[in-house]
Formats: sequence, structure tokens, C-alpha cells
Amino acid sequence: MAGTNTAKEVQAPENTPLAPVIILVGPQLGENIGMCARAMLNCGVTELRIVKPRDGWPNPAAVSAASGAIAVLDNAKIFDTTAEALQDLEFVLATTARNRGIVKDIYTAEAGVKLIHEHNAGRAQKCGIMFGPERTGLENDDIALANATLSIPLNPGFSSLNLAQAVLLVCYTWLSCDNPYKTADVEKEMGGTELATKAEVENLMDHLVDDLETGGFFRSAEQKPTIIRNVRNFFFRAGMTAQDVRTMHGIFTCLTGKRHRKAE
Amino acid sequence: MAGTNTAKEVQAPENTPLAPVIILVGPQLGENIGMCARAMLNCGVTELRIVKPRDGWPNPAAVSAASGAIAVLDNAKIFDTTAEALQDLEFVLATTARNRGIVKDIYTAEAGVKLIHEHNAGRAQKCGIMFGPERTGLENDDIALANATLSIPLNPGFSSLNLAQAVLLVCYTWLSCDNPYKTADVEKEMGGTELATKAEVENLMDHLVDDLETGGFFRSAEQKPTIIRNVRNFFFRAGMTAQDVRTMHGIFTCLTGKRHRKAE
Repeated sequence: MAGTNTAKEVQAPENTPLAPVIILVGPQLGENIGMCARAMLNCGVTELRIVKPRDGWPNPAAVSAASGAIAVLDNAKIFDTTAEALQDLEFVLATTARNRGIVKDIYTAEAGVKLIHEHNAGRAQKCGIMFGPERTGLENDDIALANATLSIPLNPGFSSLNLAQAVLLVCYTWLSCDNPYKTADVEKEMGGTELATKAEVENLMDHLVDDLETGGFFRSAEQKPTIIRNVRNFFFRAGMTAQDVRTMHGIFTCLTGKRHRKAE
Repeated sequence: MAGTNTAKEVQAPENTPLAPVIILVGPQLGENIGMCARAMLNCGVTELRIVKPRDGWPNPAAVSAASGAIAVLDNAKIFDTTAEALQDLEFVLATTARNRGIVKDIYTAEAGVKLIHEHNAGRAQKCGIMFGPERTGLENDDIALANATLSIPLNPGFSSLNLAQAVLLVCYTWLSCDNPYKTADVEKEMGGTELATKAEVENLMDHLVDDLETGGFFRSAEQKPTIIRNVRNFFFRAGMTAQDVRTMHGIFTCLTGKRHRKAE
């Protein structure tokens, strides 16, 4: 998935429901904060809040890990308490492992981000998603401030994600709900050439059939139409380009020459 | 998203369609290979193949970055060429940035993994997903070996993912197609208590209304039923637990005591 991040400015998503605010509570490593900013911007999520970052703020390690998502870090707001970080938000999800012993609805990532889209559908409601510190996750006092919790359904025998991976999966799941960057499910990449016309493919078939006739390929008259049909079907199924047709003409001509030379 | 990976053994997913083989072509950093193994196992994807790892194999940096997904690394197969790595596979997707100038269908991640599920639906067909080196991505000679390409629809102004994040998003998208680890969209976490019965909530209402009568809260007879209805609605909407009801009884008693004391 190599690629170059050309944008030095935050690219806010266009025509999307309002993206959720991402709240990191007590993150330990600056590197992880930077990677979270990168993961957010990958998904068009730009508003970051950080509660009591362990190593202070600003943090140079965050900048170098952000791979260019600097504007997300520059605009990040720092808070002393979780309650302050959430005070203007109307609907907040807390990411947790299961069974935290606190009475609260647990949504899957997909169902949780759908709620955020629904909350934003009527009006631009400020929503947020909270993530806890790397080692311990959110404390129950933080979870009590959320409307519900969100859990990513992963392999239960191996479900631990690092912080930036959790942010990436949740933000991408949010994005996938209504992705403005998605075009068609499938696109044809034509590499500067065009699909061959039917006539060009038929012309190639004629070339091939002539050569095969000359070479005595058709042992019986009954076989011939079936073989031709199968080859034609293969050519059309493959979606031959004009260039493919020219190449195959060249190949048939070359092979015929070879056979003729061998036969001499 | 803190949690502990307790499994030292690969936890193969149960009752899933056959997971795709993940093929890393020319990965540079051992750390990235380890993080790919971790991301795979998070999603129940266990078969890893590596073509010409730059720093040789085995690689201690991969092991320490795998956070316990050691079995994926131990079972990884190493190849000299991409063609050899793919030879027993029947359907392979190549992950790319867009517009590689090669004639091939480009699927979104969602549509691409759906194809893999469909290929596996009738029989256990071996499918794979290829990822290129960190800096350059897959070369066109590698892409030519794939059946189609797959591109993750991200913020076009900031779309670069690191290798392990790309593997994580693709594997999670595959998993989400038919996720055996997912239960209900929403679950009630009850924290060891139970929802209050209707009678318990009504008893609490009686307690409150009595106290409010005593305190002269209801200024007019018309207001009273509306206020009571709103409070009752709030209590039921909140999904009070038996513990919540006991706590509120205590709170009302305490507040009444306070008021009585003040009034003395």
C-alpha cells in the first residue's frame, strides 16, 4: 500500500456526515499519538483531543510518527480530565474490551459507528469516540461518561490491537458507513489502451483459424466449431485490449514462421 | 483497545470461509513483517508467505513486533519469486494505489474480499492477497500475476498506509464479510446486576412522589400528572437496574433528611 502523502494540510472530508471527534485518554507514547493522527487523516477524521498525555505536549515523537498528518496534531486540544474533553459532545462511545463490569450497551464497531451516522443525520450533532491508554484501556470512571461502549469483534484468542490500529479500524469502519472516497465497487484500469472492438477480435480469430487450418489442427469436422467457440469465448472473456490483439497477431505470425521453418 | 493476547498458538478461525493467504512481496523491515503477522491473527488469518524479505529470514525484529503472533511467523513460507509464492493459488488480488498503468480490474477492499468469499463459497478455493514493499508497492510484473487489484478507498489527499495497517484493514474487511466472532450488534453489559422490575421502579416512583408532595413540589394539580409521567418515562428509558433503584431510594432519603434538617 505504498503511496506518498502529498498533503501537508488537513484534508477535511467533503460531503460526509460530521466525523466523530477522537479522544485519546492518557496515551503513553508520543509515537502512538502520531500514528493515531495518521490513521485518522487516512479516514478523513481530523479532530483529536488528548487527555493527560503521559509525556506532555507537544511531543516531537508524535510529529515524526504522524507521517505528515501534522495539522491533526497542531489542532489537537489537550485536557486535564476526560469530563472536560467531552463537555461539548452530545453522543460518545467508549472503546473497550468486553465485560468491563459496568452497566452499558456494547455495540460492535459497525453498529456503533452507524449510531454516530444516525445521530448526525438530522443535524450536525457532535459525537466522539474515546480510546484508553495503551496498557490498561479506559477506566470505568471514563466509561461512565460515555453513552455506550464499542467493541471490535476480533479473534477472541488474539484480540489485542495497538492504539493506532484500534483508531484505524474504528475510523475506517466509520468511513465505510458512507464513504465519499469510494467510487464503483470495481473499475477498469486500461493502462492507456482500449478494449478491442468485436471486429478486431473476430479478425484475430480469422487469423488464428487460417493458421490452424494450414497446420492441420482440426482433426475432425465435428470438433472444429466447438474448438473455435471455446477460443472465441476465452478471448472475449479475457476482455482483450487493442494492444492484446496486436500482440497476439504478432505471436501467431511468429509461431507460424517457426513451424514453417521447422517443416522446411 | 488494551487487552492481553493469551494465545501463544495460532487460533484458527472456526466456521469461516477459508481465509486468504497473505503474501508480502519484498518487505523491508522485520518489524513490519511482525506487525503484519499480528494484524492477520487479530482477524483470524493465519497463512503468511514472504517473497525475498530484504533482511533475510528468520528475523528477530519480526518476532518482537509480532506481540505473540509467533505461530504465524513460524509457519510463514519464504520464496525467491512471486510466481513461486502464488503457484498453488487459484485467485489472487494485488493491493495497489490506483492507476498503475496495467490493464486490470480495480476492486474496492469491500468488493475484493467479497469476491474471495464467493470464490470459496462452492468449494475451498485457495485465494491470496498480495502486498508490495513498504516504499514502492508492488511492481507491475507482480500485479500481472494477480487476477485483479484491490484498492482501499481512503482520503485521497492522505492515503498512504504503512504495510501492517494495510494488511490490518484488508484482513478486517475480509473478516467483516462474515465475522464468526461477531455476536449481536448490541449487547447489554449488566455488570453483575439485573434490570429493575417494573414494580421496583414504581415503588421508587411512590417514594419520590411522596417526598415531593411533602416538600410542596407540585404547585398546581394540573402539572402533577405531566411531571410524574416525564420522570417515570426517564426512569424506564434509562433502563434502571435493581442497584440503580436502591441507590436512588438512598439518595431521596438522604436529600429529604437534608431538607428536613434545613427546615428545622
